Amino acid sequence: MGEAYATLMSRMKEIETVSQIQGLLGWDQEVMMPPKAAPLRAEQMAWLSRTSHSMMVESTMGEVLDAAEAEGAGDEIAAGNLRLIRDAYDKATKKPVDFVERFARHKSKSIVSWTEAREKDDFSIFRDDLAEMIELNRELAGYLGYEDNPYDALLDIYESGLCVSQVDPLFAGLREALVPLIAAVGDCEAPDMSWVTSNNWPEAAQAQLSHEISSAIGFDFDAGRRDKSTHPFCGGSNPDDVRWTTRYDEAEPFGSLYGSLHETGHGLYEQGRPRHLDFQPAGHADGLGVHESQSRLWENQVGRSLAFSEWAIPHWSEYFPSNMNGVTGEMLWRSVNLVAPSLIRVEADEATYNLHIMIRYEIEKQLINGDLDVDDLPDAWDDMYEKFLGIRSPNRKQGVLQDVHWSMGAFGYFPTYTLGNLYSAQLLVAARADLENDETLEEMWARGEFEPLLQWMRDKVHARGSILSPAELVEEATGQAPTPQPFIDYLRAKIESLYGVAA
Amino acid sequence: MGEAYATLMSRMKEIETVSQIQGLLGWDQEVMMPPKAAPLRAEQMAWLSRTSHSMMVESTMGEVLDAAEAEGAGDEIAAGNLRLIRDAYDKATKKPVDFVERFARHKSKSIVSWTEAREKDDFSIFRDDLAEMIELNRELAGYLGYEDNPYDALLDIYESGLCVSQVDPLFAGLREALVPLIAAVGDCEAPDMSWVTSNNWPEAAQAQLSHEISSAIGFDFDAGRRDKSTHPFCGGSNPDDVRWTTRYDEAEPFGSLYGSLHETGHGLYEQGRPRHLDFQPAGHADGLGVHESQSRLWENQVGRSLAFSEWAIPHWSEYFPSNMNGVTGEMLWRSVNLVAPSLIRVEADEATYNLHIMIRYEIEKQLINGDLDVDDLPDAWDDMYEKFLGIRSPNRKQGVLQDVHWSMGAFGYFPTYTLGNLYSAQLLVAARADLENDETLEEMWARGEFEPLLQWMRDKVHARGSILSPAELVEEATGQAPTPQPFIDYLRAKIESLYGVAA
Repeated sequence: MGEAYATLMSRMKEIETVSQIQGLLGWDQEVMMPPKAAPLRAEQMAWLSRTSHSMMVESTMGEVLDAAEAEGAGDEIAAGNLRLIRDAYDKATKKPVDFVERFARHKSKSIVSWTEAREKDDFSIFRDDLAEMIELNRELAGYLGYEDNPYDALLDIYESGLCVSQVDPLFAGLREALVPLIAAVGDCEAPDMSWVTSNNWPEAAQAQLSHEISSAIGFDFDAGRRDKSTHPFCGGSNPDDVRWTTRYDEAEPFGSLYGSLHETGHGLYEQGRPRHLDFQPAGHADGLGVHESQSRLWENQVGRSLAFSEWAIPHWSEYFPSNMNGVTGEMLWRSVNLVAPSLIRVEADEATYNLHIMIRYEIEKQLINGDLDVDDLPDAWDDMYEKFLGIRSPNRKQGVLQDVHWSMGAFGYFPTYTLGNLYSAQLLVAARADLENDETLEEMWARGEFEPLLQWMRDKVHARGSILSPAELVEEATGQAPTPQPFIDYLRAKIESLYGVAA
Repeated sequence: MGEAYATLMSRMKEIETVSQIQGLLGWDQEVMMPPKAAPLRAEQMAWLSRTSHSMMVESTMGEVLDAAEAEGAGDEIAAGNLRLIRDAYDKATKKPVDFVERFARHKSKSIVSWTEAREKDDFSIFRDDLAEMIELNRELAGYLGYEDNPYDALLDIYESGLCVSQVDPLFAGLREALVPLIAAVGDCEAPDMSWVTSNNWPEAAQAQLSHEISSAIGFDFDAGRRDKSTHPFCGGSNPDDVRWTTRYDEAEPFGSLYGSLHETGHGLYEQGRPRHLDFQPAGHADGLGVHESQSRLWENQVGRSLAFSEWAIPHWSEYFPSNMNGVTGEMLWRSVNLVAPSLIRVEADEATYNLHIMIRYEIEKQLINGDLDVDDLPDAWDDMYEKFLGIRSPNRKQGVLQDVHWSMGAFGYFPTYTLGNLYSAQLLVAARADLENDETLEEMWARGEFEPLLQWMRDKVHARGSILSPAELVEEATGQAPTPQPFIDYLRAKIESLYGVAA
């Protein structure tokens, strides 16, 4: 590589160091920080952001980047680094300073009005701020630039290269398959949950079970931590310091365990990043969609399988001996796979979850493109729930006001959740093709043998960092561009085995 | 204030922000960080140090400081800030870059040879590195500058303005009083410790007792935390985020409780800093000696009093009901006040502790001034222990090789421990004069009323930040320059009440 590239990479190392420090402070804020420390912590965080931003937009940065691009990339790693740095530089420099400030101010204002609107179940309180937030996002799309659709510019913030022309066909195929499938389940009998609801599930035992299962799957607790926080997340500093959290409800143990499996999936991805690319953009995880594929893989496709449930039973019994008396792997499996349409996205099951996302995607696209007026939004929301899920919210609180994202200015973020589900199914099919020679993955999982699948993800996904764009990475790993079919097949098979229905 | 002063203070705010972040990362490293994270954490810490150092020695800093000094200080706060910034600037700029690097490299080397020498009980392994470390400290004293004695320059690093001509008379008076006092105790019967040694003291209960007592004394857990670490310390980020740690031994509960009282004392000082001086040097605590006065006050003068022991008994009984059966406040008091000469400083009691410090002070002074050769050091050490404490180490490990400080290049640090003891006694006498109108402090403590004493320290010490130098602060608060007499009186009275002897 040339001299300009070397200069560029040494600057990126500093920026990355700041970002590692931000990661640690962010974790601490959610998990450890005493309440009165919040205002001064905000000053520390603001200083770090300012410092990192100044390093990125520093006067000679554009020239160095141009020069490095002119030198040409000698290999795919350099090409990946240059692509990612150009993208970050453009995103940091294209927005005028006054816009960044207006946007930040409006965020603070909107979170307040959204919180009040939700509490009072009154959309009108949030209406004007939401309308302005949509305007600001259109303005943002203009600064960032796009080819076909302003919403493309927003999608690209959360998953590099993502655009409407990619998402539309993926989601259309998925919706077509999901709607009748869920309707068919609606007539079936729900599983017996009495063994869950009639017992108490002490927090300390839940924590031990989570820890043990996370460790069994492959999370390295010498290079990470498990803690408790109000909102579960996976954060930390770098692949040697990955910190995930969970929360506990003593009335039911699934929230903490499956939340732990989800965050463990994120954590395994972070711990598996290519270490020869430490401090390089190409050494990072490849965007939110691929990240979500790893969390959903372990939470749902592995964690909610019958094989996993059967393997897990002795572990459950170790920590909840009397509660688990007489509970079989199949009972556990049925209980963690209850499918039922519901109003709240964050509580939705694996099958209905994506319909919640698709509703938001359609609505966001229309709002940003001016095809839906803010005043028509609340009813449009309810109509779509009725159409896709067959239920209608009795109020705004459980309807259009349920998610915090729009008040924070985040348009284009939701689709990455569903992309993660699609990628995870597609990756698992490819992994089976490579690994299932003498036996199925389920046969391995039933013995607690998770290493072959993890190693496959390490090789094909984790170790590739973000050298390729997410769509290219999925194609390289699976031999096929992103497609909804594997996920549809997976859900169909699962629902058939659970409820005996097919659609 | 003038324009240069304003510029200076805005730069100090940035430097202080970095230092708050360093405080948090330092805490995390000792308390939370997973083991594999150490190397990349070191990179983060190094970046923060480099950034902070560059801000301090930045090319225009000297001019801005000169200009601010020329503008003149309008009040004592500005005067304090200018004095402290000048001091920090001089310390940061007077050392040549190559010296800083040599010193750092030699530290790393010396810690290794000291560790090996201590393990193998062989001073010769550490001898050459120690000799070079003494040379480096002489060189350092030369850069920093001094009037009478090179050791003065080193003392000043840890307590601003401290010098041999101040310490010598303080320590001489103290030693003269202590040596016969301790010799007299030697012939007395030790208290009955069987209630301690015959029981087990579960860690969880020790943690709850520590927490409750720290809170009762006034530590605000909404602006701080208590955690566990190998080496107890008080750290964190700022007065809203003060984090102290302790360690537990289930064979005896005093280490954790009195360690907690000690760190609580440091923590109370930090939480009591003047908040209108946030981000200003004058808003900081006033050096290591005053800091130690606050920790020793609550640990020893309050915590090891009979009144405190009597107040504490019901709390002990709450967490250790069967262990405490039949244990009285007086038994507890006698057990936490066992006076006996011993070889190891960190395990020494309140009375003998300062002799350990004075031995190190005398030796350091002689080593730095060239009055003691490194080859004569091990025997000189043992001779002084014999002379002052009447005991002699059977080996080097419990003798001259016991402390890590010299291998880390820290000469001039030890005296602040004893200064803290002296200051704490002197401050307590002054507080009594102000507060003991209708009743003694002991009568208040026996009821758990610690607030009047804490409030006095808040007003006279904590709220004064480092506007004044430590010696000036003690004089302002007590009406008298630092003197050993109050501490001598306190120890005499205590030993008489414990053992019935006077000297």
